[in-house]
Amino acid sequence: MNIAILTFDGFNELDSFIALGILNRMKGSGWNVQITCPSDQVTSMNGVTINAQQPLSFCNDADIVLFGSGIYTRDIAKDPSIMSQINLDSSKQIIGAQCSGTLLMAELDLLQGLPACTDLTTKPWVIEAGIDVLNQPFMARNNVATAGGCMSSQYLSAWAIAKGASTEDAESALTYVGPVGEKESYTKQCLDVVSPYLI
Amino acid sequence: MNIAILTFDGFNELDSFIALGILNRMKGSGWNVQITCPSDQVTSMNGVTINAQQPLSFCNDADIVLFGSGIYTRDIAKDPSIMSQINLDSSKQIIGAQCSGTLLMAELDLLQGLPACTDLTTKPWVIEAGIDVLNQPFMARNNVATAGGCMSSQYLSAWAIAKGASTEDAESALTYVGPVGEKESYTKQCLDVVSPYLI
Repeated sequence: MNIAILTFDGFNELDSFIALGILNRMKGSGWNVQITCPSDQVTSMNGVTINAQQPLSFCNDADIVLFGSGIYTRDIAKDPSIMSQINLDSSKQIIGAQCSGTLLMAELDLLQGLPACTDLTTKPWVIEAGIDVLNQPFMARNNVATAGGCMSSQYLSAWAIAKGASTEDAESALTYVGPVGEKESYTKQCLDVVSPYLI
Repeated sequence: MNIAILTFDGFNELDSFIALGILNRMKGSGWNVQITCPSDQVTSMNGVTINAQQPLSFCNDADIVLFGSGIYTRDIAKDPSIMSQINLDSSKQIIGAQCSGTLLMAELDLLQGLPACTDLTTKPWVIEAGIDVLNQPFMARNNVATAGGCMSSQYLSAWAIAKGASTEDAESALTYVGPVGEKESYTKQCLDVVSPYLI
């Protein structure tokens, strides 16, 4: 399984790295989770420069693609030099977006008329793109999901593991990363949010 | 305010970057949050290479120092070339550790006999270092705190903001990063964990 976490200049560290940390709990089961970028290096919204693990083309053949969020997403959505490189197919790939990443999914026509989740800053731009925005942290149908609010990354990640492997694997990953002494309640709360969308 | 997030080779992305993301909500109030490393670049436990924002010496004059976690912490704790560069003073600095970072605080004699939190993997090594380990996500006394389980980074971060600025600032940062539609309950839950240690 190849998993691309799309990460652009100005990226929100919480959105890309919470997903990376949780999804890598599946490394032992052969999941290859990769920070995927349009350039060799990208710098986060708070000035941390990281090396790409994969070029953008990696996402087109990945089994799971998650769109990270960031402060330059509106510009990226209008940049054909980046957007033309992303060619996804939700009938074959599991695709999700975090916060402003929802705008990129809208631009790529990946939401298929679904209402979506995003952060409060991005909300007006997603509405402008013709998408209904929900006042909830997570939403999914079939192979497509969106999440809003940085810490909802945990829901998007749990959904991706449940879709790509099993609910038991998602439960195991959540239990590992959960706070000591709260692992059971933490895992239950996350799965309660995600489970209705796994039917 | 200078804030050092100590980040070593093999680092856990959740532990360093959840703190970075939440603490940077204070950027507008002059907080300078920096990934602080013993080398120009470090590579995470899942293979992501990042550039240091500051050398290790930055931590010695920082107002707040958070020890990140990682898979090589036991080796780092025994490496005088790294440990001798870290000279902290909990009477003047706010100091916290996440997961295996607790082992580094123990090694540097920063826990002052306090029982501590850590992750379940590190627990036996912290006990071996003579520290009582608690079955809870977060613990603090005066200027010193420890947290256990990756997602407890949110508690350590909230505590650091409350200590370095105010509980209202911590509340504001948590509200921003919280899941859409759950921001109030998320913020309350985090502050409920941290508040007893702010007295």
